[in-house]
This record gives sequence, structure tokens and C-alpha cells, in this order.
Amino acid sequence: MNFGIAVHGGAGTIARAELSPEREQAYRAALEDALRRGHHILKDSGSALDAVEAAVRALEDCPLFNAGRGSVFNADGQHEMDAAIMEGHTLRAGAVAGVSNVKNPVDLARRVMDDGAHVLISGMGAFEFAHREKVLLEDDEYFFDQHRYDQWRQVAGSDVVKLDHSTADGKGKFGTVGAVALDQHGHLAAATSTGGMTNKRWQRVGDSPLIGAGTYANDGTCAVSCTGNGESFIRAVAAYDVSALMEYRGLPLNEAVREVVHRKLPLLQGEGGLIAIDRNGHIVLDFNSEGMYRGECGANGIVSTAIFR
Amino acid sequence: MNFGIAVHGGAGTIARAELSPEREQAYRAALEDALRRGHHILKDSGSALDAVEAAVRALEDCPLFNAGRGSVFNADGQHEMDAAIMEGHTLRAGAVAGVSNVKNPVDLARRVMDDGAHVLISGMGAFEFAHREKVLLEDDEYFFDQHRYDQWRQVAGSDVVKLDHSTADGKGKFGTVGAVALDQHGHLAAATSTGGMTNKRWQRVGDSPLIGAGTYANDGTCAVSCTGNGESFIRAVAAYDVSALMEYRGLPLNEAVREVVHRKLPLLQGEGGLIAIDRNGHIVLDFNSEGMYRGECGANGIVSTAIFR
Repeated sequence: MNFGIAVHGGAGTIARAELSPEREQAYRAALEDALRRGHHILKDSGSALDAVEAAVRALEDCPLFNAGRGSVFNADGQHEMDAAIMEGHTLRAGAVAGVSNVKNPVDLARRVMDDGAHVLISGMGAFEFAHREKVLLEDDEYFFDQHRYDQWRQVAGSDVVKLDHSTADGKGKFGTVGAVALDQHGHLAAATSTGGMTNKRWQRVGDSPLIGAGTYANDGTCAVSCTGNGESFIRAVAAYDVSALMEYRGLPLNEAVREVVHRKLPLLQGEGGLIAIDRNGHIVLDFNSEGMYRGECGANGIVSTAIFR
Repeated sequence: MNFGIAVHGGAGTIARAELSPEREQAYRAALEDALRRGHHILKDSGSALDAVEAAVRALEDCPLFNAGRGSVFNADGQHEMDAAIMEGHTLRAGAVAGVSNVKNPVDLARRVMDDGAHVLISGMGAFEFAHREKVLLEDDEYFFDQHRYDQWRQVAGSDVVKLDHSTADGKGKFGTVGAVALDQHGHLAAATSTGGMTNKRWQRVGDSPLIGAGTYANDGTCAVSCTGNGESFIRAVAAYDVSALMEYRGLPLNEAVREVVHRKLPLLQGEGGLIAIDRNGHIVLDFNSEGMYRGECGANGIVSTAIFR
């Protein structure tokens, strides 16, 4: 039986000059680690759902990425994290928006899904649910990252909402993480997790925790996890649109992804990319930005990672 | 030029026996009032966006419906309201989740859209934005409704999450309100507003404020506003699915709506309905529940309302 997994660690303007060989190696190693954790589960006949959760958890635990540990600071100097998970054979889904102090937001999203009463919970309410479910909590110090703090201090008190890694020319990187997988039972799953935008206000919710926008999985078509300027992805209903183009127009995965990433999203100033896998194990990693931290691993266990084109 | 507007005030199990002629008349009068406000704007060459906002505002102001004044109580005895608005020619959208003390959540959603920085904001953050935008605020007393309070007191302190109007047999009514419109310029718009579920916890967010799930508008296809058990509508990406079936499969509006309401949603235990209008002014009001408070008004100004089949 075919199976496979893909991950991303965000897309956007990634300055080659600022990415030292050591730092590039660190990113690639983190992506590889996430892929191997997912692959290990899939190889042992585990579920795609468990595989994407494990892969995203690993990326959340790595401070290089804007999710879990290493999340950016909002306008109040706090961390507000979003995550979602969805399984393709039941179309069950769980998501959390604006949670603080939860070590792995993707695990909390999984609990929401397993609980079944709701799909999306938020803020302090989600924190209370985390308490009830006894998921791992961490104090603010755990999430602290000097680089993220410095990014925030540059704009704190202003109206500027910065992307994860804004560069000198005003462009930026969208530091979401995500995973999609196909398991040996033929089931698909997707998960996404993010710390959002630096200095964001008003408890803004991006596309990551919104089913159909940043995250979607359907055994009949594909599993998708997006990264980019979330507002455009919400307005494009980007993740579900890939699935709809396959189901209703009969496009293969790569063409459906191309239509969304290179035609529909640019019409809405949508910058970023997405990762997707179909029920045959075809993997597509596509983006309209300068780069996307990404990687994939098929049934043969060969891991490949990339950042630029 | 053709134009038109449709509204809904929720769907579900509406007990005929409990609906006195006086009460039915009150519901119909409220739906008519909302339709006339929207029609007045459309007739004067106003925008579909202004028309749906005015219609939903009128329904929010009426305590008969679970939105704005008359919203249900959450587990903490508070009102947490959600709303969204979207315009079809720009695909711009704005939404708020879990706001309290905002007289008209749909107006706040409109401000989010006009501000343009974000699509969805939530909780206290959305309340701060409401302050900045100087939208009308009201104290808790304004939102108080004895009937809603009694509904909540029956289940307060328990794990029971009730629908707006749960009946003796455990079924219920989903008391969202919404509007869709086509204006004389050929533009479409949709808006939805809700008080959510009685005794809801964890700052649960339903489908209403989620673009693509409970609310969607696209000049190329249709404008849609949903009402039902929100979790199923989120998992089905119901509102956008109607649009995708038109765009990708070439279905006319009524067939696209039928596919979503009578085939796709039931597969996910989705109960409720939706209202939709296409760019030719065709209006479809469809539901898979016992009834849906609904009405429509075309360019001729003739208003019709209905509750049961």
C-alpha cells in the first residue's frame, strides 16, 4: 500500500543572504525530523491523523518556526496560537483559535475533534478546555524567543502588524507549520499550526484554524495545509477550493493546486503556498512566494527537503 | 435591472402547536420589515452590501430571533455573538466571533471588512475594535430576554448545550439570521448573525462568522447565508460549496443548493437550511429541517414570507 507525508514550515520572502549555511541546515534538520516522525507512524500502519499530529507537534516544539514554542508576540506582548486538524474519511475536524500557554496547539485541536461537540473553540474558553483535557501547558518563558521578542519590540505600540520575518523591503515570511499525509488504509489527514502575525491586534484569527481556508482533508480528493497571508486564503477558501477543483472539475492534484496558488490567490493578493497529498500518494508542494520551507517522504522512506525553488 | 433580497431567521424543528397565530404573525412581520428595509435600499440603486447589512440589523434588533437583542445565554450566562458579511464583486469580507455588548454585530463585521486589515477578529479584541470604531454598544440588560433566560436556567451548570429552541423531543431550532441580495449594479452580498447555542462553552465558534462555511458571496456565482447545526456546516464548507458546484460543475443555483442541503449536509448529520441568490436574481430558500423562518422580495416589491413547507 502506498503512503506518504509532507510538511511545511512557512512561506514568503526568505532572504538567501540572511540564511547562513548553518541556519539552513537547522531548518532542514527540523523538517526532516518532523517527516521521520510521521513516516515512522505510517510505516507501522498508523493513521494519517496520528502522523500529521506528530509531525506538526515536532515543528511546534522547534523554536525556528512560528508555531508553539517560538510563536510571535501579539500587540499585548502575548502569544496567541491557532491550530486545526481534519481527517479525510469522516470529515471530522477540530480547531483552536487564540490559545495561550498550550504547549502543542495541534494536540488541543485533536482533542476538540475527538470530543466531537464542537469544531472550533477559542481564547480563554479553549484554555479551559485544555485544562479539562489535561493537555501539556507551559509558562510564558517556554514560548519566549529573543529573536521574536526583538521583532515585536521594533513595532510594539504602533499600528504595524508584521509578518513573522519581515525583511528590509517590507516583505515577509508567513511562519505557519503544517502537515498532510496518506496512510496505508487509504485515509488522508491534514493539520496546521501558527503563532499568527507579530503585533496582531483584536484577537485576529487567520486561515490556519479555519476548516476549508487553511486546513482541509477529504478521502475523496486530497488533504491540504496552507501558509500565507491568511486573510487572502480565507477569502479564497483556499484549502477546500483545491478539493472542489478535483471533485467537481476532475483536475488532478497538481493542476488543482496550480489553479489555486498561481491564479486564484494572486487575484486576492494572496501570497504564500500550500502542501497537498491525494489518495494515490501524489504530493504537491507549491507556492507563489520566493520560498517555502518544505519537505516530503514517501513509502520508500527517502526524505527530501527544500527552501527555495 | 433585476434585483432582489432574501432573509432567514433560523431553521429547525418548529412546533406548529406552539406557534400561535399571533406569534406566527409577529415572526412574519419581522421578516417583512427586514425585507422592506433591504428592498428600499436596492430600489434606490443602493448596494447589495448595504441592503443585507440593513436587513440583518433589523433582525438583530428583533428579540424573536437568536441574534443581537434576544441572543441566547452561554454557559457563563453571557451573550457571545458572531456575525459575518461578504461582498461578491471584490470578495472582501469581515467577521466577528464571540463579541458581547455590541448592539449590531453585523455592523461590526462590516467595519472589519471596511478596515481591511483582517477578515475575522474575536472576543475582547473585537470589543476593543468596536470601541475604536464607535459602533453602538448596549449593556447586558438590552440583550436580556426572559424566554432565553428560562431556556438557559434549565440547563445552566450542566453539560447540556441546547439549541435555540429545543423542544420536548430533544430536537431544536437554529436561530441564526441572515440575508442575501443582488443589487441593480449586478453585485451580490451575504450577511449572517447569531447568538449561537444556549449554554455553549469554551468560546465555541459556529459556522456563521466563517467565510465559506455559513456565509459567502461571489458575483460569478451566488450569495449564501446558512442556518443549522454549525459544526456540520463547517465540515461541509457549505456556503462555498454551493458556489463551487455552480462554478465548477455548471449547476444552476437551485440544483447546487439541493445538492448541499439534501445530499452533502445530511451525510454529516447537518440539519438546517440556507438562502441563496444568483446574479440573475434567482432566489432559493431550501432546508432539510421541519421549517425555516424565511422571506423574499424581488424588484417588483412583492414580499412573501413562510415558516413551514
